Amino acid sequence: MVNGKRAVERCDFLGIAPYSDTEDGLYRGYLTPAYAASQRVIARWMTEAGMTTRIDAAGNLVGRYEGAGSRPALIIGSHLDSVRDAGRYDGPLGIMLGIECVAVLSAMQERLSFPIEIYAFGDEEGSRFPLAMLTSRAVAGVLECDIEEPVDSAGASLSDALASYGLETQAPVAADVPGLQAARHPGALAYLEAHIEQGPVLESEGLALGNVTGIAAQRRFSAFVSGRAGHAGTTAMMLRRDAFAAAAAMVLAAEECARAEDADRVATVGSIIVGPGAANVVPGAARFTLDVRAATDEACAALADAILAKFGAIAAERSVTLSVDALHHLPASPSDSRLLELMDAAIADEGLPARRLVSGAGHDAMILSALCPTAMLFIRCREGISHNPAESVTAEDCTLAGRVMLRFIKLLEDFHGA
Amino acid sequence: MVNGKRAVERCDFLGIAPYSDTEDGLYRGYLTPAYAASQRVIARWMTEAGMTTRIDAAGNLVGRYEGAGSRPALIIGSHLDSVRDAGRYDGPLGIMLGIECVAVLSAMQERLSFPIEIYAFGDEEGSRFPLAMLTSRAVAGVLECDIEEPVDSAGASLSDALASYGLETQAPVAADVPGLQAARHPGALAYLEAHIEQGPVLESEGLALGNVTGIAAQRRFSAFVSGRAGHAGTTAMMLRRDAFAAAAAMVLAAEECARAEDADRVATVGSIIVGPGAANVVPGAARFTLDVRAATDEACAALADAILAKFGAIAAERSVTLSVDALHHLPASPSDSRLLELMDAAIADEGLPARRLVSGAGHDAMILSALCPTAMLFIRCREGISHNPAESVTAEDCTLAGRVMLRFIKLLEDFHGA
Repeated sequence: MVNGKRAVERCDFLGIAPYSDTEDGLYRGYLTPAYAASQRVIARWMTEAGMTTRIDAAGNLVGRYEGAGSRPALIIGSHLDSVRDAGRYDGPLGIMLGIECVAVLSAMQERLSFPIEIYAFGDEEGSRFPLAMLTSRAVAGVLECDIEEPVDSAGASLSDALASYGLETQAPVAADVPGLQAARHPGALAYLEAHIEQGPVLESEGLALGNVTGIAAQRRFSAFVSGRAGHAGTTAMMLRRDAFAAAAAMVLAAEECARAEDADRVATVGSIIVGPGAANVVPGAARFTLDVRAATDEACAALADAILAKFGAIAAERSVTLSVDALHHLPASPSDSRLLELMDAAIADEGLPARRLVSGAGHDAMILSALCPTAMLFIRCREGISHNPAESVTAEDCTLAGRVMLRFIKLLEDFHGA
Repeated sequence: MVNGKRAVERCDFLGIAPYSDTEDGLYRGYLTPAYAASQRVIARWMTEAGMTTRIDAAGNLVGRYEGAGSRPALIIGSHLDSVRDAGRYDGPLGIMLGIECVAVLSAMQERLSFPIEIYAFGDEEGSRFPLAMLTSRAVAGVLECDIEEPVDSAGASLSDALASYGLETQAPVAADVPGLQAARHPGALAYLEAHIEQGPVLESEGLALGNVTGIAAQRRFSAFVSGRAGHAGTTAMMLRRDAFAAAAAMVLAAEECARAEDADRVATVGSIIVGPGAANVVPGAARFTLDVRAATDEACAALADAILAKFGAIAAERSVTLSVDALHHLPASPSDSRLLELMDAAIADEGLPARRLVSGAGHDAMILSALCPTAMLFIRCREGISHNPAESVTAEDCTLAGRVMLRFIKLLEDFHGA
């Protein structure tokens, strides 16, 4: 039987050093020492569950359970990296539940007409480099990024990080841009991802699981405000061009715009660097991120446009200059309609109500939809808390999730076998 | 004759590596490698000007020009440390002009009835440790700080930094607090400091020099806002307790309070750290500094109280917790009335108008006033710009400043000789 308790315990095991890059709170970055240590132990768990393992050109760990037929693989995936001061389940839980499903099939010596590949994706959060979902984009063949460009906070480029990890990065992915040679050929039968909800809907309705209809659109920006640094004691208030005060007004404007919209829209300024950054100097520069999400592409674009228009007005009013770079734009991504029905059936077969809901968070599934039909299963989490050490799930819910996934796999077999 | 051009050129010489700790823009921190390199070259200049040199227990470089009598020393001082991305004259210029004065006396083999000691103070800006004017406080015997407490951004304590510099820190300064054994005994005859104005008054009135009547009061605080971190995609706007958005509202409140007051009052939030600090996480924590200044103690306290009351209201309204630590409180410091008259006379003797003005910036002179009577001479700087690479003075103004300082020294001799 599917062991949800073991899946949870394995996530907990990975929640501290050496599987975290920080002693104080969990952080596991893409291609870091904690990432390598985690890959080693997960590869062992995959092997014990009857899989062969490999690391692809993007640094993803992949476990493969062979099928009996010649169909392309079902991919079950989620991500191994985390945000800073993270919870333990956002990402790893989906990998562990995939391993549990294979462990059951393997123990029963059951072969399907398709192989199953469990992907532990390397970068979904974008916590190390200023670009998210790098590795699922590489697998889906839609990564258009010069690997020399993104640089982490320690000054290492993505290219450096890949080379230090021992990965080959020479050949171009598309045109003449050097990239990650991890794109799958010829593709996949389907993609299945289990993930904590990271929101309060399931808990508020007393439900363990939800069938994800799609993922909200996301736009992320980097804004740079340039004013004039000056002495904090002698620069009169009216003569200041304080870049941080301007940025503060922009933070509040972003909040106000998002609040004015319906509940499906959010805007977040999660990081800022102020320069020169001393108590006794009026800030001359400020760089910050802006993350905007909404259920549809149109709503996301409208919210981003409204916020950026406010930013421009604030910059003009305060005589500072503003430049904004679009870091990424992830369109809204609906789940595959036939897989949605299979998932409804799998959930119903476990005797549970088939609740459908949209995901406010981005997931690797939205990227994989470029490669194959995708489906996602949400698992209830306590108080909807995520990206926080207080993230919590129950072993019972995880066992249910694993059972539903296993039913989904068998329904997929029936569907394609029919 | 006093060589203002050489004084300026020496400041320029010290403006780049190895006399700056950063290659890109000037930063010279207290007890850093650039600080040590700068001390070595300035000690050579002091020796060439006829002085003996030593480094005191606080790491200050002191050059001494012996007098013929038994009076306590006239101290001429200013600071060697800088803010980040600094100008070249804020601090070092006062040291260089002191050396120029001694060089003239020494060349003429002129001995006064008192020795002159040139102090190159180590920490005035507070750029490395979160406490300013550490070293002049040590010299004045008013430093009440446990040297184990202040920690720089790399995690080194003040105690570590002193020990690495080879300085003795064992014995207690006051009661049982280990401190810096640099207090002067028995004190000093007077303290003279020349400094760029760092404001626009002299330039706007077409004057080279100003006689400083006193230094504004300063209060500095560290504020910590604690909210709740959460996922940027799934935490609805109305459920957020965003610590950075709260801090942004506080930044604007501080600005508004200071703007509402008269032109002599300023408030600055110069640095902030947001945690966890990722684009896709709602900030759960924010720590920032608040610097408040006004011409009188009463006005400074009133402005600080008004701002902190607003902070409290914002925290309550946004359901975040706020804690505020008072980092330091420097009372307003008037110059000595008799030295003010001597300085007026010295300026008039050079044929210049004796313009008196208040200093919005803090200076070591405000600390030294606990030890002896103090006087300060302001030098015009271009557009009032300071704490900025665009800081600029003319060699002509600096020659005038050195001539006035020399006249002041001789008037002091006459005054005490009379």
